[in-house]
Amino acid sequence: MPVKTIRIKRLVPAALALSLMTSLPLFSAHAEERIMTTQNAGERAAKSGVPFVAPALEKYLQGPVAALWRRPELSLRDRSIVTLAAVIARNETTELPLYLDLALENGVKPREISEIITHLAFYTGIPSATAAITVAKDVFARHNIGADQLPAGSPNLLPLDEAAEAARAAYVGQQFEAVAPGLVQYTTDPLFRDLWLRPDLAPRDRSLVTISALIARGQVAQLPVHLNKAMDNGLTQTEAGEVITQLAFYAGWPNAFSALPVAKDVFAKRAGQNG
Amino acid sequence: MPVKTIRIKRLVPAALALSLMTSLPLFSAHAEERIMTTQNAGERAAKSGVPFVAPALEKYLQGPVAALWRRPELSLRDRSIVTLAAVIARNETTELPLYLDLALENGVKPREISEIITHLAFYTGIPSATAAITVAKDVFARHNIGADQLPAGSPNLLPLDEAAEAARAAYVGQQFEAVAPGLVQYTTDPLFRDLWLRPDLAPRDRSLVTISALIARGQVAQLPVHLNKAMDNGLTQTEAGEVITQLAFYAGWPNAFSALPVAKDVFAKRAGQNG
Amino acid sequence: MPVKTIRIKRLVPAALALSLMTSLPLFSAHAEERIMTTQNAGERAAKSGVPFVAPALEKYLQGPVAALWRRPELSLRDRSIVTLAAVIARNETTELPLYLDLALENGVKPREISEIITHLAFYTGIPSATAAITVAKDVFARHNIGADQLPAGSPNLLPLDEAAEAARAAYVGQQFEAVAPGLVQYTTDPLFRDLWLRPDLAPRDRSLVTISALIARGQVAQLPVHLNKAMDNGLTQTEAGEVITQLAFYAGWPNAFSALPVAKDVFAKRAGQNG
Repeated sequence: MPVKTIRIKRLVPAALALSLMTSLPLFSAHAEERIMTTQNAGERAAKSGVPFVAPALEKYLQGPVAALWRRPELSLRDRSIVTLAAVIARNETTELPLYLDLALENGVKPREISEIITHLAFYTGIPSATAAITVAKDVFARHNIGADQLPAGSPNLLPLDEAAEAARAAYVGQQFEAVAPGLVQYTTDPLFRDLWLRPDLAPRDRSLVTISALIARGQVAQLPVHLNKAMDNGLTQTEAGEVITQLAFYAGWPNAFSALPVAKDVFAKRAGQNG
Repeated sequence: MPVKTIRIKRLVPAALALSLMTSLPLFSAHAEERIMTTQNAGERAAKSGVPFVAPALEKYLQGPVAALWRRPELSLRDRSIVTLAAVIARNETTELPLYLDLALENGVKPREISEIITHLAFYTGIPSATAAITVAKDVFARHNIGADQLPAGSPNLLPLDEAAEAARAAYVGQQFEAVAPGLVQYTTDPLFRDLWLRPDLAPRDRSLVTISALIARGQVAQLPVHLNKAMDNGLTQTEAGEVITQLAFYAGWPNAFSALPVAKDVFAKRAGQNG
Repeated sequence: MPVKTIRIKRLVPAALALSLMTSLPLFSAHAEERIMTTQNAGERAAKSGVPFVAPALEKYLQGPVAALWRRPELSLRDRSIVTLAAVIARNETTELPLYLDLALENGVKPREISEIITHLAFYTGIPSATAAITVAKDVFARHNIGADQLPAGSPNLLPLDEAAEAARAAYVGQQFEAVAPGLVQYTTDPLFRDLWLRPDLAPRDRSLVTISALIARGQVAQLPVHLNKAMDNGLTQTEAGEVITQLAFYAGWPNAFSALPVAKDVFAKRAGQNG
């Protein structure tokens, strides 16, 4: 990736994030996109009313929130995935077009967005996913995204770690087979023997979506398992801490502060294992 | 009930559930209903965009989710009540028309839907209920449901177990009278001396709605009390486990897995009491 | 304030709360407002469908809920703030116009509503706030509220208790600096060194908004800290208990009952310290 593109990529999204909600001027790497998006931004700003109704929030969006998106601890693409997952998980459908536009602008591929929504059908429920699809359909049409940019229904799956999956299935079965045998079976298939192996969203990104949804909905009970899985899948400790920071702004301080002690404990235990 | 009707009832709803969201052909026991519902289904499929935006979710809806609705551990009617309660409890109003249609198709009476919404006004808040009513009003009109099919405001109440209610009231009063005397009073009346005794939704079904709402919103703290009450009201252990399985798909895996250990503990304690 | 006005103020809001959703006649202290609001109320009643779809809920709204709003343990203004915070925190945007109208009618100033929304951007996430702003913009326009009635972006801040803030920052930093340094920094600034010091919403009211949002979303983990802060800021124990009672109706019984033992414990510890 040429240096110039990187620099533009680093600068654009904060401006974009703001301009879509406010009246800041917008620039983009691609002229045509710029025009289309700027118009949307103008309409959005007029519709959103942030500068008029909440001048304080406008100030924070232009200051600390813009600075947040520029922090190097987490890429723009990852921040967009985290934020998009939170907005879908919380059924904030009226705000979803902005975060879908932002994800596409920040390099999240349409096929990845498709898989993020399907992944969240399992982690936050089918109605959350179908509500998001109704919105995404129009956003995809506006961006001229066709079926060729979306995943196949039944692609070749990634290889499975049979031993790890067998251990997981045995543990869950031993715990809950007598309580909800159907759920135990569905957790094996389709959840872990199909969904998690679909190739159009990397396992590390599926983990990013999963922990973002858990934190954004305040469901920290399953966070240790999934944060460990995320870090096994390549998420660094610095990135994980920054996911929580990003979610403080997009899912509220209380959810972030409920996640902090859980993450601290996971980090400490992993450090102990590696030490 | 004649065998043929049962067979149709067993086959219809899964097809219905899918066809309302996708492009599957739809059939129904009643020709006129079929035509009307098929048109709605076609419009819904075109609007929903599931097959286009998320081909993987489309595949899961046609496979494991269709199979879920056919599982004999919980009736179609009960699955519709559980799912409807979850969607109302989570304020997923854009998806609500589908689940209201499905509930009516699967034999939930309009007067029961009315009481489910009123019950949820107490268990998930008045705004959740009034938002659902705005949607239900149009669905009822589309199905030609009139006031004669809806409950009276003040019907004759079911008999109260005075001893059990007195014990409950004494316990709650002793715990919380000094903290929130108003809430203690409102919990006695209207909650337990009026709402729970209204005759147009059976106590077992009120319990089904209550535990579905608790699980769907991740509020497991009150689940032991209400799961015990549900089983006292006639919900079997098999049905309770299947409620959790149904909610994994409609309120997300994390909520289901937070409910599992709670249910396991309730089941074990009840087995110990009966053993 | 003359006695007559007080009496009217005591009578109006319950009638208003109901008439906006139902078909009750409405009266108001100001003739012009009455006409405008009554028309809205009529439209809302027709649109809401509560009396038709859920006659039982209609009965409860006219009985115990109307009585709730008249209880002297918490002022109408505070009840409106608590309820508005809950509705915004839970993204119940379709119901929001009613509760914004009710807040304005009950004496919550437009500049306070603006700050409530900005405050909730931090406590329940930016998307909750921007969704609320889209609704509030239209409500403000309908009430002819102009920029002169809204806060400045950067007003003179209230004085800071430097010692208390330094202690808080030291504790949070010691706990979580290694986990999420960005979040630790943002919690100091803008959260505690800017947002909480903005003058257009009193600290006691910011606390009221914060504990209402925590209870309404079921996030009791941070409730002890913020309930203590609320009482340090002037909220009485009676008012705090009544906040929970109000939220039983507007965020559901389970959230209220999860808050009760936490509040009981906070009250006991404070009584011990003062004894």
